[in-house]
Amino acid sequence: MTSGSLDVIDVGECYELLASHEVGRIGVNAEHFPLIIPVNYGMDGRTIVIRTHPGTTLTAAAHANVTFEVDEIDRTTRSGWSVLVRGLAEEVGAEHRADLVARTHAAGVAPWAPGEHGNWLRIIPQEVTGRRIVPGRLPWGVDERAYL
Amino acid sequence: MTSGSLDVIDVGECYELLASHEVGRIGVNAEHFPLIIPVNYGMDGRTIVIRTHPGTTLTAAAHANVTFEVDEIDRTTRSGWSVLVRGLAEEVGAEHRADLVARTHAAGVAPWAPGEHGNWLRIIPQEVTGRRIVPGRLPWGVDERAYL
Repeated sequence: MTSGSLDVIDVGECYELLASHEVGRIGVNAEHFPLIIPVNYGMDGRTIVIRTHPGTTLTAAAHANVTFEVDEIDRTTRSGWSVLVRGLAEEVGAEHRADLVARTHAAGVAPWAPGEHGNWLRIIPQEVTGRRIVPGRLPWGVDERAYL
Repeated sequence: MTSGSLDVIDVGECYELLASHEVGRIGVNAEHFPLIIPVNYGMDGRTIVIRTHPGTTLTAAAHANVTFEVDEIDRTTRSGWSVLVRGLAEEVGAEHRADLVARTHAAGVAPWAPGEHGNWLRIIPQEVTGRRIVPGRLPWGVDERAYL
């Protein structure tokens, strides 16, 4: 038996990991399924910002409970980590975009960051959890330690 | 403007990609959120098999609409692909496990494949879609071409 706490990534490190990546996956309910959609994103402080296009699946995300997941898995060593954000998604109004663009660029995530056109969605985290996968402990059990 | 069809991966190749990986992410509704949970998996023909433990989040997946996502993203070239399966999850009864283990081992996915203990979940695909990310086309728009 091992302690579940060994696998848990604390919230501060979860945000560092989120800030170190540019591609994640949004979980959103649409068409009777909890869809998983890869997106590129930028961080605005502790808020996740995603560019969308009108009329797409992600329109369903506005004002809804969504999740956002980022992970890094090394298939060779069978180790890695994952971070899961639970939050509320909302559209970013035009009046807030200029500020957001400036802040996002200042954070150095411009290349993959949301552009200045199209619709923007932001995810305001309610809970952020992470877990680390330790080599030799895989295949990992699907358990609730980091997610419940 | 580019043709959306260029990005679509046909169903046959989607299954080849699924068979070439061992770690994916299940999308399941639990606790008011569309959770995204990394899992290792094995393929049994066109069925996805995942080992779970009793009392975990994935218990919520049984008899529910779930999704299963696998992707590969190269951060250097900004290219990659993703496959999304929409399907129905169900528990695998003990009477079917021996057959399943034999078939899964025969398919050569034993190391990361579901073990012989614990609960098993299988996802029976209803729809499988995939899209390819072409270098130079990123940051990718979040659009519905492959997902709607």
